[in-house]
Amino acid sequence: MTEATTRRRSRGGGGAARRAERTAVTIETAKYIERNIPNFEVLTEEALDIIEANAETILEEVGVNFVDNPAALDRWREAGANVTGERVRIPRGLAKKLCSTAPKQFTQHARNPEKSVVIGGKNMVLAPVYGPPFVRDVEGGRRYATMDDFQKFVKLGYMSKWLHHSGGTVCEPTDVPVNKRHLDMLLAHMTLSDKPFMGSVTEPSRAQDSVDMCEILFGKEFVQENTVMTSLININSPMTFDDVMMGAMEIYAKNNQACIVSPFIVGGAMAPVSVAGTLTQVMAECLAGIAYNQLCRPGAPVIMGAMVTSIDMNSGAPTFGTPEASHITYGAGQLARRLGLPFRSAGSFCGSKLPDAQAAYETANSLNMGLLSGVNFMLHSCGWLEGGLVADFEKFVMDADQLGTLHGLAKGVQMDEDAQAMDAIREVGPGGHYLGCEHTQKNFKSAFWKSDLLDYKPFETWEEEGARDTRTLATQRVEKLLTNYQQPALDPAIAQALADYVAAKKASMPDAFM
Amino acid sequence: MTEATTRRRSRGGGGAARRAERTAVTIETAKYIERNIPNFEVLTEEALDIIEANAETILEEVGVNFVDNPAALDRWREAGANVTGERVRIPRGLAKKLCSTAPKQFTQHARNPEKSVVIGGKNMVLAPVYGPPFVRDVEGGRRYATMDDFQKFVKLGYMSKWLHHSGGTVCEPTDVPVNKRHLDMLLAHMTLSDKPFMGSVTEPSRAQDSVDMCEILFGKEFVQENTVMTSLININSPMTFDDVMMGAMEIYAKNNQACIVSPFIVGGAMAPVSVAGTLTQVMAECLAGIAYNQLCRPGAPVIMGAMVTSIDMNSGAPTFGTPEASHITYGAGQLARRLGLPFRSAGSFCGSKLPDAQAAYETANSLNMGLLSGVNFMLHSCGWLEGGLVADFEKFVMDADQLGTLHGLAKGVQMDEDAQAMDAIREVGPGGHYLGCEHTQKNFKSAFWKSDLLDYKPFETWEEEGARDTRTLATQRVEKLLTNYQQPALDPAIAQALADYVAAKKASMPDAFM
Repeated sequence: MTEATTRRRSRGGGGAARRAERTAVTIETAKYIERNIPNFEVLTEEALDIIEANAETILEEVGVNFVDNPAALDRWREAGANVTGERVRIPRGLAKKLCSTAPKQFTQHARNPEKSVVIGGKNMVLAPVYGPPFVRDVEGGRRYATMDDFQKFVKLGYMSKWLHHSGGTVCEPTDVPVNKRHLDMLLAHMTLSDKPFMGSVTEPSRAQDSVDMCEILFGKEFVQENTVMTSLININSPMTFDDVMMGAMEIYAKNNQACIVSPFIVGGAMAPVSVAGTLTQVMAECLAGIAYNQLCRPGAPVIMGAMVTSIDMNSGAPTFGTPEASHITYGAGQLARRLGLPFRSAGSFCGSKLPDAQAAYETANSLNMGLLSGVNFMLHSCGWLEGGLVADFEKFVMDADQLGTLHGLAKGVQMDEDAQAMDAIREVGPGGHYLGCEHTQKNFKSAFWKSDLLDYKPFETWEEEGARDTRTLATQRVEKLLTNYQQPALDPAIAQALADYVAAKKASMPDAFM
Repeated sequence: MTEATTRRRSRGGGGAARRAERTAVTIETAKYIERNIPNFEVLTEEALDIIEANAETILEEVGVNFVDNPAALDRWREAGANVTGERVRIPRGLAKKLCSTAPKQFTQHARNPEKSVVIGGKNMVLAPVYGPPFVRDVEGGRRYATMDDFQKFVKLGYMSKWLHHSGGTVCEPTDVPVNKRHLDMLLAHMTLSDKPFMGSVTEPSRAQDSVDMCEILFGKEFVQENTVMTSLININSPMTFDDVMMGAMEIYAKNNQACIVSPFIVGGAMAPVSVAGTLTQVMAECLAGIAYNQLCRPGAPVIMGAMVTSIDMNSGAPTFGTPEASHITYGAGQLARRLGLPFRSAGSFCGSKLPDAQAAYETANSLNMGLLSGVNFMLHSCGWLEGGLVADFEKFVMDADQLGTLHGLAKGVQMDEDAQAMDAIREVGPGGHYLGCEHTQKNFKSAFWKSDLLDYKPFETWEEEGARDTRTLATQRVEKLLTNYQQPALDPAIAQALADYVAAKKASMPDAFM
């Protein structure tokens, strides 16, 4: 029995909690991916040297802005940076040195210890889409997201075998006041799933609420000694760190909770139109952001992020699954590995308005690139639609199914004697077939990855069954998963304490809708 | 002016031919891909050694069958193999030694010399789907393919910027007698397109017809001295070489025309259920087939093929875009490079019945894998549907558009001073934007790959314009391309000679429908 289970059982609840745990349905969740394949690298060492040197030049000569945050400016000044107004110029090598205290990898604990994840190294952890204000499904069309949608996505994430993480703002529950919705979102992740999750970043006080609720869920001491949240800190590219995001990051770092420090870049708009130029800026921004994170608490867990995409220069729309986005992601992975930090990038990115072929091409391009670029934490790995404006129910389960292919690819190739199959080749010989041979019978169940969604039926059967396309199959799968959903057991005392916390917080302030 | 142009102009036709050439519309065709990125390799050197050694063991101990082909058995006997009945056992090292006379790369000439392709090395040549008996489009649904469909696909291939090759049996024209359809197919490739193409392999006599027609198109001497066809020779896995395919290959090799020697394997049925076992069999089969090709004419151009996919053990259906198929393709690419031969694999593979999200996920998985595995000749690179049973019009243009992403990826990352964009980063600075800066203005047109098909519009515009999905956009693109199609100029004397040849051949034998 692991530490986390012991801890949970030792707290209140007693008979009722134990009964709840006994009757819970076991949901299969794959272990996070451990790569047994190499990374794909598009940049030479020389190119990486140039980009790193240029990033240092940017930090030294141009600098970055820390906005509305005098305390941050003080920290930078003390650390040896040159501060003029809100501009922070960082002497060559300083940011990299500060980054060196960050851990190469860390464990993010889930309340179900079997679902804790190790972020970094050769691992890849998959989390769902984050941030869309809209949702879409076949029946309801495109509409503003609600808390009911949010809860459904958390349930689908919990039921998805290849998803290791419950994520954060899987959609924006626009029917709940802005200043209170983080409470409901956290409560949903904590009670409807037992996978790891993300904290709120929209206000420093909401980050603090996230920490407080985790202390209820995991125990105060456990939270101070362990990482139980990985939260998304966006940089306002180019080279601007706003007080809201930095304020949230300060709270998380001080509490030893993980942050993804991540530029959000549409190339050509928030960064140069070239791959090398964008990578230079990404590197400079990440160095500055991660260095600041470590100034807040040396050794705090942190992930180097790069959410970068290309642009359609005609419409100004971001474009996804493009070769340039792939180049940037491959390059950013190489830079993160040189820095010795976990890397966040890629996702089920697409610009399509519907979960159609465009969506799937773009998404598959991005997912494959994410695996091969050495991503350690893939946010948005399922459900993303329309440039991230929409969380799509059908696409969520379609993408989540495809994540299985990444697990299979990452396994690499077995080369033991059984895998060499020489006896089978001898047994079957020229002109025979392998369907019935001993080797096939012994291995076929585990030999091939199999979709839980896609159609493999003969044409005639498929036609008789209604000639369903992928989206239709996905509609049916969403329905099935939600129908079969059973809430994972949680000590009722903890559940009550969380509900009480949320109720008290909500009562303590008037609703605000912006 | 290149050799091929000179040759064509010097033959008959005169004024009419020159006028035809002057009035022809120029269609943009991208140069074949020249990779500036590394290959992705999943197997260690040790693993490759094991597979090669095991393949030699198979050839030596188990052997391969050359069926109904006494001349082949004689050739093998003379070369030093042990022949018992139709079983050919090849002493260790012999097949590899015979393969060593094949060229590392070769040029396949097109009648338009600007569209000639170099197959091998770091290049990748893209050709359309091959072999489906059915076609599908939105309007007509799924139906048996006709010669009219065939001609439309050749026209679409001619109009597709990212497609370098016109292919071969883009669909089976089932309305033309089996013993005559190769003539119409070749005539279509020769007259409706000016890209390189494939010859017939369904009978040795049809291979000879292909050579004869090429001699009309290119000139007899030119054909004997140059490669003008690349044709597909399938191996009947496991380890069987039938007389029809071998007979066709003998004709092509003797005429210095290229063959793709390619096992067609559904893993678990025609090869062991494991990746390593399948690769071993692929290697043994290719070694034997290519060695035999070189026995027919040392130095004949040849491509090592691997058309391998996984199987759904429930239905027995082949499955596509799966991780195991990727492992095999990556591994086969490594084996081909060790052998020093051009490599054929991958394609727009999918099992889906419709050009929907399933089709696109599976296709994108396979296309990306094809590029990164070092494929030199990608047959089936667009238009494949339903496990290859169907050539789909919409999917043809959808896939052909995605092939653009492979061109972009293969370019690699520019690292010159302009690409480093330091001046742009200095100019814009923290909080600015790059849309108007000089660097962006100078580079935006070539900075990002742009789809000619997919939707990048704002949601509102997209909705006003009918909320079209990818398939609907593709229907419209097919129509537009076919409407705008203009036949490439061809010397009327050659066109007449080709038509006469076809008419005479057709008149020389009764129709046969099997």
